[in-house]
Amino acid sequence: MPTAETTVPAAAPAPVVRSAAPAAGSRATMRALVKSQPTVGLTWTPDRPMPVGSHGRSGEPGPREVLIRVKKAGVCGTDRHIWEWDAWAQSRIPIGIVTGHEFAGVVEKIGSAVTRVKVGQRCSAEGHITSYTDYNSRTGNAHIARDTKILGVDRDGCFADYLIVPEDNVWPLHENIPDKFGAIMDPLGNAVHTVMSAGVSAKSVLITGAGIIGLMAITVAKAAGAARIYATDMDPKRLALARKLGAAEAFSPVSDKGWVERVQRETRGDGVDVLLEMSGAASALDEGFRALRMGGTAALLGIPSKAPNFDLTNHVIFKGATVLGINGRRMWETWYQMENFLLSGRLQLDEILTHELPFEQFPKAFELMQSGEGIKIVLDLER
Amino acid sequence: MPTAETTVPAAAPAPVVRSAAPAAGSRATMRALVKSQPTVGLTWTPDRPMPVGSHGRSGEPGPREVLIRVKKAGVCGTDRHIWEWDAWAQSRIPIGIVTGHEFAGVVEKIGSAVTRVKVGQRCSAEGHITSYTDYNSRTGNAHIARDTKILGVDRDGCFADYLIVPEDNVWPLHENIPDKFGAIMDPLGNAVHTVMSAGVSAKSVLITGAGIIGLMAITVAKAAGAARIYATDMDPKRLALARKLGAAEAFSPVSDKGWVERVQRETRGDGVDVLLEMSGAASALDEGFRALRMGGTAALLGIPSKAPNFDLTNHVIFKGATVLGINGRRMWETWYQMENFLLSGRLQLDEILTHELPFEQFPKAFELMQSGEGIKIVLDLER
Amino acid sequence: MPTAETTVPAAAPAPVVRSAAPAAGSRATMRALVKSQPTVGLTWTPDRPMPVGSHGRSGEPGPREVLIRVKKAGVCGTDRHIWEWDAWAQSRIPIGIVTGHEFAGVVEKIGSAVTRVKVGQRCSAEGHITSYTDYNSRTGNAHIARDTKILGVDRDGCFADYLIVPEDNVWPLHENIPDKFGAIMDPLGNAVHTVMSAGVSAKSVLITGAGIIGLMAITVAKAAGAARIYATDMDPKRLALARKLGAAEAFSPVSDKGWVERVQRETRGDGVDVLLEMSGAASALDEGFRALRMGGTAALLGIPSKAPNFDLTNHVIFKGATVLGINGRRMWETWYQMENFLLSGRLQLDEILTHELPFEQFPKAFELMQSGEGIKIVLDLER
Amino acid sequence: MPTAETTVPAAAPAPVVRSAAPAAGSRATMRALVKSQPTVGLTWTPDRPMPVGSHGRSGEPGPREVLIRVKKAGVCGTDRHIWEWDAWAQSRIPIGIVTGHEFAGVVEKIGSAVTRVKVGQRCSAEGHITSYTDYNSRTGNAHIARDTKILGVDRDGCFADYLIVPEDNVWPLHENIPDKFGAIMDPLGNAVHTVMSAGVSAKSVLITGAGIIGLMAITVAKAAGAARIYATDMDPKRLALARKLGAAEAFSPVSDKGWVERVQRETRGDGVDVLLEMSGAASALDEGFRALRMGGTAALLGIPSKAPNFDLTNHVIFKGATVLGINGRRMWETWYQMENFLLSGRLQLDEILTHELPFEQFPKAFELMQSGEGIKIVLDLER
Repeated sequence: MPTAETTVPAAAPAPVVRSAAPAAGSRATMRALVKSQPTVGLTWTPDRPMPVGSHGRSGEPGPREVLIRVKKAGVCGTDRHIWEWDAWAQSRIPIGIVTGHEFAGVVEKIGSAVTRVKVGQRCSAEGHITSYTDYNSRTGNAHIARDTKILGVDRDGCFADYLIVPEDNVWPLHENIPDKFGAIMDPLGNAVHTVMSAGVSAKSVLITGAGIIGLMAITVAKAAGAARIYATDMDPKRLALARKLGAAEAFSPVSDKGWVERVQRETRGDGVDVLLEMSGAASALDEGFRALRMGGTAALLGIPSKAPNFDLTNHVIFKGATVLGINGRRMWETWYQMENFLLSGRLQLDEILTHELPFEQFPKAFELMQSGEGIKIVLDLER
Repeated sequence: MPTAETTVPAAAPAPVVRSAAPAAGSRATMRALVKSQPTVGLTWTPDRPMPVGSHGRSGEPGPREVLIRVKKAGVCGTDRHIWEWDAWAQSRIPIGIVTGHEFAGVVEKIGSAVTRVKVGQRCSAEGHITSYTDYNSRTGNAHIARDTKILGVDRDGCFADYLIVPEDNVWPLHENIPDKFGAIMDPLGNAVHTVMSAGVSAKSVLITGAGIIGLMAITVAKAAGAARIYATDMDPKRLALARKLGAAEAFSPVSDKGWVERVQRETRGDGVDVLLEMSGAASALDEGFRALRMGGTAALLGIPSKAPNFDLTNHVIFKGATVLGINGRRMWETWYQMENFLLSGRLQLDEILTHELPFEQFPKAFELMQSGEGIKIVLDLER
Repeated sequence: MPTAETTVPAAAPAPVVRSAAPAAGSRATMRALVKSQPTVGLTWTPDRPMPVGSHGRSGEPGPREVLIRVKKAGVCGTDRHIWEWDAWAQSRIPIGIVTGHEFAGVVEKIGSAVTRVKVGQRCSAEGHITSYTDYNSRTGNAHIARDTKILGVDRDGCFADYLIVPEDNVWPLHENIPDKFGAIMDPLGNAVHTVMSAGVSAKSVLITGAGIIGLMAITVAKAAGAARIYATDMDPKRLALARKLGAAEAFSPVSDKGWVERVQRETRGDGVDVLLEMSGAASALDEGFRALRMGGTAALLGIPSKAPNFDLTNHVIFKGATVLGINGRRMWETWYQMENFLLSGRLQLDEILTHELPFEQFPKAFELMQSGEGIKIVLDLER
Repeated sequence: MPTAETTVPAAAPAPVVRSAAPAAGSRATMRALVKSQPTVGLTWTPDRPMPVGSHGRSGEPGPREVLIRVKKAGVCGTDRHIWEWDAWAQSRIPIGIVTGHEFAGVVEKIGSAVTRVKVGQRCSAEGHITSYTDYNSRTGNAHIARDTKILGVDRDGCFADYLIVPEDNVWPLHENIPDKFGAIMDPLGNAVHTVMSAGVSAKSVLITGAGIIGLMAITVAKAAGAARIYATDMDPKRLALARKLGAAEAFSPVSDKGWVERVQRETRGDGVDVLLEMSGAASALDEGFRALRMGGTAALLGIPSKAPNFDLTNHVIFKGATVLGINGRRMWETWYQMENFLLSGRLQLDEILTHELPFEQFPKAFELMQSGEGIKIVLDLER
């Protein structure tokens, strides 16, 4: 049975914090956040052995792998699930894993057969790792490959000074994209993939759920050409932010009774062209589809916590709707789209990336997420 | 309270049967099948007044309407619901209506402002009637207009010697398409719309449910270029017919245990590219989505009898699936596609159109449908 | 042989100018600009008989037509061709026609069989008139019907107090869209159709030719979500305006040598995702396609004055490009998109609509166009 | 100056012919057809050193490469250009290269970092070799990558007992696809990519040019669901074969005057939905586009020998056409489609694959191609 001391760093014995990791060549261990016990929290580990490559050697990438020094890492809702050790986490996460899957870093070593990535390359990486042997991964849809393993979920991740990933997963960061945005391209990619799959240009769009990805989807939808954006959320602060990011109107499904009818009225009586479901709530699914016009498109990213009582007949079949299941982000089309958006200056991400904290203050990151005070939080491994 | 005599024609007093209706100009009444009582059956009516145009005059089409003499009429599953007077029918069908919505006929009179249709034109018609004022109907998707009324459901239909429809709904029949196929373009259009929306060319396709439209979908999918077709149904006779029409394999979900895994094995371990759901059964939905590959497309036409316990998370979201709700048929893209298919000689409809009966033998049509002996049945109003 | 007096209004004997047309019911004639002579200019006609409906009666719409009082009318490049009586105009325009095809007005009378339009409805109209009998017009693409007649080109147009159009062509104007923008929905529709056909969301876009529609395409592309916009034109003033409307860079193909290579460099070395060709110049076609990436999309609206020596092999085939011929605007999808854009407040049309002139000052409109001082000019028939 | 002896094998001194290549491990040389001299013909080379891997060692694949023993190899029109040493070949082909790029073989050795391919795997390969660093190759369109090198054109190819290709280019052959068809998946892929890019399901299709790929396109278009296929060619024998493969009608543009109008008449007066241009002839481009309906789609594969005088205005812009430049075949979507088609049994390739010859009879292959007696010819390296 783990003690609070081992898993909650607030009580951990004075972790040695460096402003930046030394060169990989000179070291055998590194700092890491490890899911070391089947209970709440993560364990601060100052001397985790360096990550192991496919050849089985610590600190050495396999022939087609690269070793990356992490500069900044984003904290995801998934990490919170792992921290809170909920049912999903218990069913999926192997004890002992280094968590984290969103980051920006720099390549420090490359494997012997690496051809496209160079040492010194600043980069992010796609966290879905596949063998590229099935239909989807060989046709531009590796994000839904059959054998995907996820960084920080199925294998060691990026809440550490170093990680090893296949060369195939490296995304070179454009010089004009700062580390802090490179560190959140994973969730931004979820938002971009959702928005671009549905297609919002010149359309009316409803986004149900203004969490991290829902809020990102608002600024992305605006940049992507949505003509009118509606958003819903339970939290008034999020609704205010939704409006600031570009929502023409933002409703609380609880206090704004009749919001569905109002949206329909304002959209020629038809309803919105596009629904982006970001909450996973059964009520949001139901109301969102009611607000969708006949023949409209719904893209679903939010994961219902259990099978909802979903009215397939009226919401999909009679409506002639198109429903898109959204999972991850396209490799690499979504990443190119992100790069284009980030370089265009049309995204308002600073409103969403509310906190940057030194690595060792990671418990505060989870507190800020749990309290709702923080939205997107990035850990800085160089401070 | 209706008596059996008034509603079940078997006991009706010797209906006067003509081999064909006389010219519309010379008559005030016609034969018709009317839902005259809120109970099982339809009432044979030898002297129904001629249909009423938008101007309110019997036998006279309004300025933009045409009067059509019916030659052959298809009996639909919807007509069976109306006959059996089930919950749906009770909630929707106005007592006194002439039923039927699938037909081939000939234009006998045109309204004063009709510009595109001529007297003598052999035709079928689209049964969805709309005012062409909303977004969908003005952008090539009138089949999902907001104010649609359906022939034989919301207003007088085609189980009669004559009916009146708006000029906008008339489909001229190509000279090489016989009346019997013109009379079933409505359900064929459902099948074509489903198949063409999903896109089956060079793909593996699973069709769950081999009823009228499911069977049509098999022959259509083959003509449309499907590389491999699987079908499921409970009825061994339907499964045999499915194979004859082009299914590589046809499974009974009851007796062919493990059929989902077998389909997956035969499709590179991925699963089928396309699911066409034609049954409305919750188990078919569930198994069909399990057999669908990641990133596949499902087109749903079958209407679940109640909200199924549908696993949106695994079947749609994690799968990255595209789900298309299918309703009616596109006006007029689907009709052009049907014409192309029918003229290509690539459809095997004669296997599906099992019976043609004289109009007055309509009770037998419902018996054949209920027993499963008949599949698609057409009433001939000219015999 | 026409005299200057009859065709150039500057010398016309004091036209009677009304601030607004009186009610249609009370009059037999109206003001109109007529192509009365096969020479340069248009003839100011204070007493043109009221337009004739399909029934052949002046001032009376046919059963499916409406009579519209014109409030504002846009002057198009096509009108300039007709004014200048160039080779195209000589080959196409019937002498005696009322010119003009872009307008906003109000419905004054409706035909007996009109069902969707009401008297008093403020509206614009689609200038492509078709019988809705061919494949395209019956499948949502009436803009490329086989038998299209164009207002002000093939039949009497809108440079007059009144015109008659089929009900099918009327577009109701949203209350929040002012007349001046209603009057230019035709060219705006060209720009929107081009931009939306190519798809610009999250993409880099090159627009060759910054004339009226090219400039509109810039503001539309920005609103539609383009990530980065490049423009070219010969005129420095247009280039400055292009930048103001949203082009990241605007080049003169003459003075900015090497602009193609610069665009390629800035787009990862690939070239732009999308080319919108708006000039019709052979050199712009050639340079534009050189600047387009492999697998990119080019939408062509500009009409080459003669068959250009176009390098189909390298520009299209080896490049794996998609090329879209753009003609008119989709009925009515483009119009809905325009409404959405106009209501979104994201278009900067005031920069492009440089002049509004009273109707009788139409010669000045053509002068301003010819000198390049004006861009889009609207005639006001109510002043 | 080359002598006939060295380049034309008919006069070559009795080449040693083996029925099959011995195991790669035991040998330093192999049979090969080499473009050894800048003149007509290819040089039979019985003792070509084994191919060189990226590590520079003969007979040894680099870390990410595989060594393949060739079983059968297709002779392509490109090979004929190289044989005939025309202007294109002179400008592109390096002297000394082993030619050939279409083949089926078996993997004999794999590099140290190969992960997806196993020794003994029967395979074909994609001949376009890229570094996977640009936009297209990272988004499912490696067939139009910026830095593509082509087997047998830019580097040693498959007219030899062995060749080395990157693991990334290997396509595993399904056990039910025989070598002879595996050896022609390259040109079949051109046909499939063209047909599937245009989309032919339920459509009327015109194929101009019934050469190897044009004929393949006919059988592919039929399998892919085309409703009606027209073909053109100058050669009556090819026209007869076109009909046999599924063309409803096949015309000689020379002797069948008025064929364009006839096609238009048979397609509702509209013209065909789809044009597949396979000839590169300027007249075929012109007539093909005339036969295409407004709003139709043209896919261009044939390479015009020089810039044709192409009427962009009428054929593309006014027509509202979509034009697709086709290059190579998609990696790997087209290959999956091919596999599906080949396994479906719906392709009639035996009519097109007219000859299989032992490797050393390669001069006869070129003779048969030049005389028109042969269509697709495969060299058998195991006989």
